[in-house]
Amino acid sequence: MAGVATLNERLGRLQQSLDEPLLVTNPTNVFYLSGFKSSNAALLVEPERVRLFTDFRYAEAARNVEGVEFEETRRAVLQDLSRRLSGRIGFESDFVSHAGFETLRAEGVDAVPRRDLVERLRAVKDEYELGLHRRACEIADRVFEHLSGERFSGRTERDVAWTIARLFHEGGGHGLAFETVVASGPNAARPHGRATDREIGRGETVVVDAGCSLDGYVSDYTRTFATGPLDDELKEAYIVCLTAQRAGLEAIRAGVTGVDADAAARRVVDESPFAGTFGHGLGHGLGLNVHEGPRLSTESSDILVPGNVVTVEPGIYLPGRAGIRIEDDVVVTEDGIQNLTSVRNDLISVD
Amino acid sequence: MAGVATLNERLGRLQQSLDEPLLVTNPTNVFYLSGFKSSNAALLVEPERVRLFTDFRYAEAARNVEGVEFEETRRAVLQDLSRRLSGRIGFESDFVSHAGFETLRAEGVDAVPRRDLVERLRAVKDEYELGLHRRACEIADRVFEHLSGERFSGRTERDVAWTIARLFHEGGGHGLAFETVVASGPNAARPHGRATDREIGRGETVVVDAGCSLDGYVSDYTRTFATGPLDDELKEAYIVCLTAQRAGLEAIRAGVTGVDADAAARRVVDESPFAGTFGHGLGHGLGLNVHEGPRLSTESSDILVPGNVVTVEPGIYLPGRAGIRIEDDVVVTEDGIQNLTSVRNDLISVD
Repeated sequence: MAGVATLNERLGRLQQSLDEPLLVTNPTNVFYLSGFKSSNAALLVEPERVRLFTDFRYAEAARNVEGVEFEETRRAVLQDLSRRLSGRIGFESDFVSHAGFETLRAEGVDAVPRRDLVERLRAVKDEYELGLHRRACEIADRVFEHLSGERFSGRTERDVAWTIARLFHEGGGHGLAFETVVASGPNAARPHGRATDREIGRGETVVVDAGCSLDGYVSDYTRTFATGPLDDELKEAYIVCLTAQRAGLEAIRAGVTGVDADAAARRVVDESPFAGTFGHGLGHGLGLNVHEGPRLSTESSDILVPGNVVTVEPGIYLPGRAGIRIEDDVVVTEDGIQNLTSVRNDLISVD
Repeated sequence: MAGVATLNERLGRLQQSLDEPLLVTNPTNVFYLSGFKSSNAALLVEPERVRLFTDFRYAEAARNVEGVEFEETRRAVLQDLSRRLSGRIGFESDFVSHAGFETLRAEGVDAVPRRDLVERLRAVKDEYELGLHRRACEIADRVFEHLSGERFSGRTERDVAWTIARLFHEGGGHGLAFETVVASGPNAARPHGRATDREIGRGETVVVDAGCSLDGYVSDYTRTFATGPLDDELKEAYIVCLTAQRAGLEAIRAGVTGVDADAAARRVVDESPFAGTFGHGLGHGLGLNVHEGPRLSTESSDILVPGNVVTVEPGIYLPGRAGIRIEDDVVVTEDGIQNLTSVRNDLISVD
């Protein structure tokens, strides 16, 4: 957990940006501001005062949170708060459901929708956060290095995914950052394929997308393995994907838009025989969540700043046949990037 | 995945309950109705027609979904749909954020908030679903049985949690249903404690709350282990907790309210020396989510019906010192319950 000084600094910056008290209910944002982990809590941030609300299940832990006044609520936190609070209060409109908004309003809270107030702070990582990302990436480097020596063919995707879970555990990860993707053969053509009971064959690509969390902060890597020799088309697709990734990595620096970073990589694919096969965005922010701002995509409205941590992950997908994706995690700096990923990125041939 | 006939039946029942087309965006509800798994999809259910929308990452899988018309959207699905759709359309107001609602409305969709339409169907399990719950519980039975023979003291909570993950994997679970709780000594006083690096001592209670998922359906068990002899107060607390659980199990049947089921167990604790220490609800529904309807608690507005699957999990929490919880999974029947949990529930002494 971040130290008290760091938490106070985050709260201070948030307080300065507020036009009215803000009710923070996104659990990740509550954790970011207070170090308190719960599925059901709210933080009311006012200029001179911060109140923490949660139910019995988390009360014992909440009492030990420094710098906040704790009040126990019923399980239905928003309903409870709608009765305790009044006046003009901002709420996180990307997180609070429409029904939750109506609940707040029903008892007379003048609920004002606010967006991105905490997310904007979270998008720029401090040294403490970068340290955890670095360590989560070091663990992922070792796991993926180890995978180069594993047998893939003849095993199910699910079995390989379990090996990956074990390797992350043994490497010191505090848990997987997300459900590991092991997508082989035609399954690899699905960017968000999961590990299935499919038995991995020979001469296939296997897309492995995995990462771990460390005190909440994550790594998120993808490498594509080849079970024995690939045909020429797939070999070429791999080189195009890697070239696209390099173009993306080279384009990223502070001041560049998410659209332009994405375009740099996309151009490489779209000028190749694989035009149109890279259907998702180039990358996304990493932090306490696996997907957060800034986005690198055709739909992004973000501009990169130093301290952003983002994935760079072009993919080439050939429906019914195969897929390839290569993903690194990088820190955005003034004049480029610091790449947190050091495991090899050439086409890795495995048994 | 449920068969096509089952999916059609679910859709048919939903269609009959609608006053206007319903836009289903809760991913669990989308899966329940279509068998399609995605983090970013929408199902527009109309009387004679069902349309499925998702972005590129899931498109390849979406094309194979039977009984729906598939349309690929941009990543910002709601924004995209707000332009494609018009007229009066219901939306899931417990799931769609306030900002999402504004997005739908901005382009002229007459968005009508609707609640619980799919959740109500999901609360009553069919034979296919009960079969998966049973198997997920059988796996959990074996895991908890095995744990009785494990050493606990001298190991960290995290290490025991990893053993549990391995046992569920070896038992055939498709993944953990939630982050395993291993809460020892004073940590056990926190109902939602996680597994930490604390080394488990002697003469302590260790609350283990864990379960697995099987084709999406979960088990959720808690047992309390004792590392060697406990003092008289903790032994008594265990008996009170077990007696409360039995009272809860005996109270549950179709027609009983969630409040009354909860009260039956709560009374036992509140008439004991441990009055006031059972701070959370008696239980919750299980299904594709670990927490769903119906609720058994002082705040519940539910009435039990046959086919509900619920947890029954009273707890006694002694802040700074210890905690105890015992949790079974049961199916509600006309005249009582079918208990899916068969692992022993006496105080289990371990090394």
